[in-house]
Formats: sequence, structure tokens, C-alpha cells
Amino acid sequence: MTGNIRPSRPRQPESPVRQENLRPLNLELIFRHIVATGRPVSRTELATVTGLARPTITRIAEELLAGSLLTETGLTRNGRAGRPRVGLTLSDRGPAGLGLDIRADALAACVVDLTGTVRHLAFAPSTYAGADAPDVLARLAHMARAAIEAVTAEDLTVVTATLAVPGPVHAGVVRSAPELGWREVDAGALLRAALDHLGPLDLPLTVDNQANLAALGELYAGDNAPSSFVYVSGGLGIGAGIVLDGRLLRGARGWSGELGHVTVYPDGEPCPCGSRGCLQTYASLPAILGDEPAPAGTTPDTAVTGRAEEGRPATLAALDRAGTTLGVALADTLNILDIDTVLLGGSFSLLSSWLTANIRAEIDRRVLSAAWAPVTIRPALLGPDAAVIGAALTSIDQVRQHPTTWLARSPGSRPEGLREPDAG
Amino acid sequence: MTGNIRPSRPRQPESPVRQENLRPLNLELIFRHIVATGRPVSRTELATVTGLARPTITRIAEELLAGSLLTETGLTRNGRAGRPRVGLTLSDRGPAGLGLDIRADALAACVVDLTGTVRHLAFAPSTYAGADAPDVLARLAHMARAAIEAVTAEDLTVVTATLAVPGPVHAGVVRSAPELGWREVDAGALLRAALDHLGPLDLPLTVDNQANLAALGELYAGDNAPSSFVYVSGGLGIGAGIVLDGRLLRGARGWSGELGHVTVYPDGEPCPCGSRGCLQTYASLPAILGDEPAPAGTTPDTAVTGRAEEGRPATLAALDRAGTTLGVALADTLNILDIDTVLLGGSFSLLSSWLTANIRAEIDRRVLSAAWAPVTIRPALLGPDAAVIGAALTSIDQVRQHPTTWLARSPGSRPEGLREPDAG
Repeated sequence: MTGNIRPSRPRQPESPVRQENLRPLNLELIFRHIVATGRPVSRTELATVTGLARPTITRIAEELLAGSLLTETGLTRNGRAGRPRVGLTLSDRGPAGLGLDIRADALAACVVDLTGTVRHLAFAPSTYAGADAPDVLARLAHMARAAIEAVTAEDLTVVTATLAVPGPVHAGVVRSAPELGWREVDAGALLRAALDHLGPLDLPLTVDNQANLAALGELYAGDNAPSSFVYVSGGLGIGAGIVLDGRLLRGARGWSGELGHVTVYPDGEPCPCGSRGCLQTYASLPAILGDEPAPAGTTPDTAVTGRAEEGRPATLAALDRAGTTLGVALADTLNILDIDTVLLGGSFSLLSSWLTANIRAEIDRRVLSAAWAPVTIRPALLGPDAAVIGAALTSIDQVRQHPTTWLARSPGSRPEGLREPDAG
Repeated sequence: MTGNIRPSRPRQPESPVRQENLRPLNLELIFRHIVATGRPVSRTELATVTGLARPTITRIAEELLAGSLLTETGLTRNGRAGRPRVGLTLSDRGPAGLGLDIRADALAACVVDLTGTVRHLAFAPSTYAGADAPDVLARLAHMARAAIEAVTAEDLTVVTATLAVPGPVHAGVVRSAPELGWREVDAGALLRAALDHLGPLDLPLTVDNQANLAALGELYAGDNAPSSFVYVSGGLGIGAGIVLDGRLLRGARGWSGELGHVTVYPDGEPCPCGSRGCLQTYASLPAILGDEPAPAGTTPDTAVTGRAEEGRPATLAALDRAGTTLGVALADTLNILDIDTVLLGGSFSLLSSWLTANIRAEIDRRVLSAAWAPVTIRPALLGPDAAVIGAALTSIDQVRQHPTTWLARSPGSRPEGLREPDAG
């Protein structure tokens, strides 16, 4: 019996590897090795690890030093007797990444340098619900300017910016952020206009989902971050950032992780999204607060923790229900994705001691693989700052991944060297 | 305010690109271009597309022809006047991939050649539930031998085999396949032993999840397969294969897609897995058949379609419920993953006319992005043969992806050519 099945579908054509392509490839190879080790590396070690000739290493190192991507550090000893060696390490006076975040309690701005160190972190109190988009983004533009000025004084150059928003985004446009009262808001264009209003500035902008950026913050920042996890961002709404094998899973169009709208009870409470029984209607902060919203002067999460610590029965019952429904929705997520770690982030990191037992009970009962492979559930590390730090780290990661692009822009570098064929 | 955040985590060290690596890279480049186009390609076109020198193209083409990876075909015309040109195309007399499947109605074996054409497809009736593992795998080993003999007569060489099983797999071991009554069955070792019992055979074996392989079958075989979709495999159980941006999403440990155990009603019907309200308890074939199992001599899916066509109220109501619960579980999946196409496979492809309306209603109501980006729901193309064809295509894809590995094994090739530095 035979039948005709087509061969696999066309892939993107690839480029052949030729001599003139070797130099930038080898520069990126060396740079990424230094990024990956996270410690000073000697030229000798670079030659050994990469197998490249010493003169090639020397020339590439000079280029990276001139472009402020690397610096020569203090001396390192390799544990044996002998002369201490000069190490190459990531520069803390070169390019930097800016992160901006619109969150429940504040607007936030953050700058990180190439080493991943936070160099600037600022907040401005903000009323969240029903926020007027041009006004919010004008205030963020001022914060961005202030951040850039502050770090310029420390010899840093902000090269790119990322804005975190609580909702799905497409090409800079926020599709739907019910907590802000936004629908189809072109946040990228509004922020661009607000920045331009403050004076000329050559700063590429990206708008991205808050839960995704927070997950990236945890991935980069965590000393022992697992390589696959579901980051649950709890607050006025609920979102998730999914990291699989060290990479953020954005979905086909960048709208993955809408955990707040996973159905828990098909015929349950109506949700503003138009559906019924969404997780959000049981486990968001407003759902936990119920008929008693947070009093003036407190935030929703401090109101919930305060009442829970007092032992108020209604609050404890609401937290029980939140934990159980979170457990059901997360079990669905883990059955679909096969991930074995859940990080409770945002407000859920503060509430984890009331939520974790019920989440675990539902996961152990409902996730098929839990029978032979236990699931880890723990609070996230960065708390409510995860998204703005993740946004800044995402910005600087563009330089980490593509150092030649930065070198071509950097006035201190010799970009013409990149174009000349050189066999090394 | 400053804080210390670690730079991104170590990546796998990469190899520098050096002269002696160029030749196999360029061979793979040329081969993949021919795989991707799916039509005969002239040496002139290869030179133009890859930018490689004509003598390099000629040498590599000879190597691929000698190794039976390519063949010179008939002549092609490019639509203009002039001499017809000799084209290079994938060989149909070289390496081949074997697929084996354990499914509800039968054991199946399939061989595809390098062009993706099915060259052998055979079935043996099989009782499914409570199947004795050594017996089933011994029968499959006989079918594998017969398949290899049949295609050897057509000058094909089966180089690798893939076995599809209805459950999560780890390193050849089937963790749990309730429909077979299997738990922790080392299917890889049992099949290996059964094959060895029939005589010496150098055939690498892989065991993989049925829904995953069926999704790959759809991806490779579909003329217009979308690059991202959820393939739902319906039958005695329910599984899903998730394809995102043209790649199968296996999850952290290869156990993704357990759609049958997504919770629909948290306090609903008990499931053999130990949970309650799993999709499987409402939408699998046994759930749809209810108190009246399929009579002897019919399969569960023909029993369901027969009764539905007769208009039996109990069957129509059960199909309504199956569609609604499938819609709820799929809406969860799409909210989490951001995928806009659902392919109904296995028995669901036969039942799609009774299921689709309810699935669509739930998805339109519950998937956040459906408001601005409609979801496609349609039957899969390959029907119940998807998994065995997908298994065979997965096998041959190893040669497509790594032609140099095959050349090094192939007696007709000149593997020493691969090891000699040659600048082309």
C-alpha cells in the first residue's frame, strides 16, 4: 500500500558560512562565553575554551574593550601558585537597559547595566484603575528621562527600553488591560510621543506583557532559577509567564499565559471578559477582598495579609477558595505543558503561606505526572519588582545577544573592523 | 537605589567556526535547501541560492548522489525557452524511516522514504485494553521485520524506527497507559529484545507519545498545515500534540499535552487517574457510548457515528456534552498557549460534525484573544493513520536533519571525504 505524503515544509534559507562571516561570529562567541561564565576570564582561558588563535583573541578583546562591552578587572588567581592574571569581564560603564512598569500600586523605572546589576530603581505612586493612557505614559516618559540622566552621570548609556503592561500586546498596542480600563491602546506610540516631547532621544522601545517580563526577571535574577517554570503573577488580575528550557514561551502571537481566564467552574461567576467561572473571579485580590475593599491608604495586598493575620474567617475562607481554584487552573496548565515548578509572584508571593497547601493538594490530585514526578511550588524571589527588573534585563539582553549591533552604534568602537575580512 | 542581580545563566558552550567545519556545514546547507523546496533543483540554482562556488556544489552533489540521499531526476523546464536542465531531488531508493503504532483497533507499521512518500502501510487487528506488553511488542517486531523486508526489495534501507504509544514516555519506558493497562512498561527494551530474537538488526529505536507523533504527521503531511496548532487525539482516551511555530512542544520532560486530564468540573465524575471531572470522563469514546458499549464486531467510533446518524437522543446528548467539555478544556489550552488552530484528530475527526459547534461556542466565549483573533477548528487530515505515519516521518527526519550521520554509515558513500578539510 502506498500513498503520497509531502516532505516537510520549507524552512528559512540559511546562509553559507564564509570567511568574511567568521570575525563577527567569533566576537560573539567570545563575548557570550564571558556573559555565560559570570566571572573574569583570562585571554589564555578564552584561547583554550574557544580554540581560537591568541592574536585573534587579542584583537577581539581590544574591540570589545574599546566599545565598553568589556573591562579589565582586578586580578584573578586560579588557585595555584604563580602570578595573578588579568581578567576580562563585563563592563559596568557601557551600555545599559531601561525597564518601565505600570503596576497596581505605582509606576516604576529601572536601569540595569551589562553585568545585570540594578543601577537605578524609582517609583511614583499611581492610581491604577481607569488610568488615562496619555497621562500615565507622559509620567513614565518623565521617569525614563530622570533614569537616563541619573545613570549617564555614572558613564552608562541607555540603549533600549522595555515597557511592561498588564495585558496582551501586539506591535506596541495593548489589546486589553481591563484593570487599567485600556482597550486597543497604542502604548508604544504614546510613550514615544511623550519622550519626543521632552527632547530628541534615540531610544528603541518595546512594549511587552507584565507577567512575561516578570518571569524573565526571575529567570535572569534567580541564583537557582529552574530552567522551566510557570510564573503566576497575582494582583488585581492574574497572569502567567511560562519559561520552558530557559526560554520564554510567548505563544503564536505573544498572548500566552492568560491564566486568569482559565475556566475553573464552567457555570460559575460571570467575569468582565464575558465568560463565566474564570480563575480571576475567585483568586484575584478583589475576589479575595470580596465585599470589603481595601480602605483608603492601604493597598489591596496589605489589606488581605492584615485580615488574614488577624484570622478573619471570611478572609481565610476566601484565601482557601483562591488556593483551590489556583490549584485547579495550575493543574490544567501543568497537564498541558509538562512543567514541574510553579513560582508564586506579585501579590501571591506575599500570600503564599495561605495559598500553597491548597494549590499543592489540587496539583497532586490532578496532574497526571505528579504521581511519579513531584511538583515544586514556591514564592518568586523578586516580589513586585520582578516585572520592571525583568523589563530592564530584557533590554540589556539585546546587547548581550547581539554585541556587534551595539559596537556598530558605539562611538568608542571601531565598527569598520567588523566589516573587514580577517581570518584570525 | 541599587541591588545586585546576576547576569543570565550559563549557556552551552558553542564551537568556533573554523575551516575544517565548513564542508559538512555546506553539505547540510545544500541538502536542506533541496528538502525544503520539495522539487528538483539544478546545480545552477544551488550555486545562486547558496552563494557557494560551482566546483563545491559539484563535489557535494556527487557525495549526496553516491550516498543515495539524492538522485538525478527527469528534466525540468524553468518556463522559458532553452534546454531542459538536469535536477537534483531527494532519492526514493535510499534511507527510509519505520513507524510503529499501538492503537485502539490495530497494530500498525509504516515506512516512508526520504521524499516523505508512504511506501508500506500494514495493520494487524489487536485487542487493545489489557494488552500484554511482551506479546504486543513481539507482534510489532514481526510487523517491523516484514516491513523492512518489503521495502528492502525496493532498494530502501530502513535506518531508524519510532514506536507510538498512548501515554507519557521517558527513555523508552511508558509511564502510564491506562487504556493498555500498562504502567512503567519498558517498551523500548521489550521491542529491542523481540527484534533481536528475530535475528541481528542494527536499528536505533525511539518510543514516543502517540498524540505528539500524530501532530508531527499532520505538520509534515498537511499541504496547508498551520505552523501552530493543537492536535486533539480522540479515542478510548484523549491526548493532545502541541505544535508552536513549526516545532512540537514536548514540555520539560516530554509529557506535555495531557488534555484528557484537564479538569472541566472540579467536583465532577471520578476518573481512573484518581482525579475528578477530567475531560476524559465526558468526551472519550467510552464516555460517549455510556451504558451501551459498542457491540461485538464494531469499533467504538463506528458505533458512535452509527447511533448519531440514526439520531438516537442519548448519543446526540452525549456528543453535545463531549463538544461542550472539549470546548472548555481547549479554551483553557488556548488561553495558556496562545494558539489559534485546533485540529480534531483520531476518532474526533470522524465525529467533528457533531462536536464542532459546541467547541466553537465555548472557545468564542472563553478565550480572551478570540474577541479580536478568531480560532480555526477543523478535522485533521490523516485520520487514524496520523500517528504511525508521523512516527515514520519522525524517523526519516533524522536523516533529513543530519545527512552527514547517514553518509558516515552508508556503504555507498565516501565518508572519508567528510573528514578532510576542504575549503570548497
